[in-house]
Amino acid sequence: MCIGTVIPQYAHFAEPLTLQSGAVLPAFDLVYETYGQLNAARSNAILVCHALSGQHHVAGRYADQPENLGWWDNIIGPGRPLDTERFFIVGVNNLGGCHGSTGPASLNPGTGKPWGADFPVVTVTDWVSAQARLADHLGIEAWAAVIGGSLGGMQALQWAISQPERVRHSLVIAAAPKLSAENIAFNEIARQAILTDPDFHGGHYYAHGVRPLRGLRLARMLGHITYLSDDQMAEKFGRRQRPGAGSYSFDVEFEIESYLRHQGDKFAGIFDANTYLRMTRALDYFDPALEHGGDLAQALAPARAGFLVIAFTTDWRFSPARSREIVHALVRNGQPVAYAESGCAHGHDSFLMEDAHYHAVVAAYLQRIGL
Amino acid sequence: MCIGTVIPQYAHFAEPLTLQSGAVLPAFDLVYETYGQLNAARSNAILVCHALSGQHHVAGRYADQPENLGWWDNIIGPGRPLDTERFFIVGVNNLGGCHGSTGPASLNPGTGKPWGADFPVVTVTDWVSAQARLADHLGIEAWAAVIGGSLGGMQALQWAISQPERVRHSLVIAAAPKLSAENIAFNEIARQAILTDPDFHGGHYYAHGVRPLRGLRLARMLGHITYLSDDQMAEKFGRRQRPGAGSYSFDVEFEIESYLRHQGDKFAGIFDANTYLRMTRALDYFDPALEHGGDLAQALAPARAGFLVIAFTTDWRFSPARSREIVHALVRNGQPVAYAESGCAHGHDSFLMEDAHYHAVVAAYLQRIGL
Repeated sequence: MCIGTVIPQYAHFAEPLTLQSGAVLPAFDLVYETYGQLNAARSNAILVCHALSGQHHVAGRYADQPENLGWWDNIIGPGRPLDTERFFIVGVNNLGGCHGSTGPASLNPGTGKPWGADFPVVTVTDWVSAQARLADHLGIEAWAAVIGGSLGGMQALQWAISQPERVRHSLVIAAAPKLSAENIAFNEIARQAILTDPDFHGGHYYAHGVRPLRGLRLARMLGHITYLSDDQMAEKFGRRQRPGAGSYSFDVEFEIESYLRHQGDKFAGIFDANTYLRMTRALDYFDPALEHGGDLAQALAPARAGFLVIAFTTDWRFSPARSREIVHALVRNGQPVAYAESGCAHGHDSFLMEDAHYHAVVAAYLQRIGL
Repeated sequence: MCIGTVIPQYAHFAEPLTLQSGAVLPAFDLVYETYGQLNAARSNAILVCHALSGQHHVAGRYADQPENLGWWDNIIGPGRPLDTERFFIVGVNNLGGCHGSTGPASLNPGTGKPWGADFPVVTVTDWVSAQARLADHLGIEAWAAVIGGSLGGMQALQWAISQPERVRHSLVIAAAPKLSAENIAFNEIARQAILTDPDFHGGHYYAHGVRPLRGLRLARMLGHITYLSDDQMAEKFGRRQRPGAGSYSFDVEFEIESYLRHQGDKFAGIFDANTYLRMTRALDYFDPALEHGGDLAQALAPARAGFLVIAFTTDWRFSPARSREIVHALVRNGQPVAYAESGCAHGHDSFLMEDAHYHAVVAAYLQRIGL
């Protein structure tokens, strides 16, 4: 059942935050939403971490925007896997985002103008630090679970490493312990599309009254290639042509072209390019094993959480083999881990889908958590 | 052994050429090179068809550019698989190209200005028609073989279908009988990068003294993702960082970024964007089975050639499964076909590499051809 109407909330953090890069944010805001009730013991809170283009509006609808359903609504609500009758769910827009949390479009207190290019590069570790402040603010000492898909799954993993006492369970879905060269290559081309757009103005486009829409559009089109599987694209679009095809031109001829252009245009209309750059860079940099000589087991050793790792057989962005690297490292450490591989057909996007097997696995895992 | 110094030659075709789109080219030039000697029976000629970014300079060097080695030199020469002691090899730049054959940068006789956007969209079938004129010009009634990799392999296939009496053997390497939705998606994003570059000027950029370098650069970077395999990228670059990395910026941090930027810059400096658009569209449109209700065997039935089909296990752009579609259709028709799968590690680019097993297969096949 859908949880119905929700409202975003804001938290201001006046203490400076030192980032992994060494840069210091003098203060910051986070926008977040909560669903369900925090219990008296404050032991039933679940943090939902978002992926590249996500935000804090994870479930429910806004009273004045009834069509604006949260991006993971299908998994959250009374009787759903993240059961709001039992859990208190928190969704948050990450630092550097463009949906209300402090980011490149926010005012730089030092100049009174938007940060733009001067907003620091943030990392997954930085997000965990900022989210920990939010946990303090909400009076949550330890999360019953931290959960996320893709880049969100990396945050769930990093939470277990960085804040072992504050995470009882980590649910890592459609993620990887680090990007491959090919993953970085896709990110780099997306960034180059934005950085070389004449409307980018070195990241200070807000002052010019323009936005690098062409670059952001291309970046998103490219992303979509990696979100769908080859098989799924074949099934969904194949070589189907659009009405009026056969024009021997560079207009839309094939359905897949129409789909990509539509996705690119839609996204460019609502997302901020400076945020996109930072989200992709956070992905590139994520590599908890790096400071342990590449030994992921050693990186994970401090964790005290139980783990549920889920991968999708049709996901070629982060294939099951990448998830199994995490599982093997945990098994090597003798740490508690459950692993599920789902055949959901939606490629990397499967983590967002309402798939019976996948949702049953999440529900079963969370039902066993004692509060 | 390398064949040494070569020189490009030009042929002018004054008869109009009606293209698949219905457009008519009033006249056209093709630039080509030949290696070895045409025998008295004119029975030893091999046509080499080029891929997306190739041209007529297939082997040897130019006297004034000793570093400019032909793109497939490693397979052509005395004692090499395409043995110039035995065969007369022809390389040609396709219609619509940017290396000397009539293309978008050529003068439109109707206006006295470069064709630009008005140069028609050409197809694989059109290339076969134009190449057939070159065969007439050279006095070659039938090719001993037509050979090509990738888009070149599609031309070898189309030759066997369109001109069955003029092709004795068709060597189809690292190709596919048609693009998948994902293949088209990559092409579409490359085209959108070019079409939305402010320097594109609707394809008439020659008149503006600029070139859509940003778009062409992105298109090439994207192409490179599909030319290499994930594994090969991992081996070649992995997550290796560049000196000075750790800057927490969008500068080059990882080796793979440096590689892609270099490839993109190099290509944008020498290639024409209007040609790139047309080459990718020719790929999209290629689908000989289309007019046979999707029945590839029926499409191939008119062919009288013997076939050698070669695929590479590390090629994810056109995987072996795509080549096997061709093989199965030929087998179903009872047509002569040999099939080889090579483990060469270079992904789609393997067809350009000097791999002992792959080259031995080509050599053995060609040695058995009676002249």
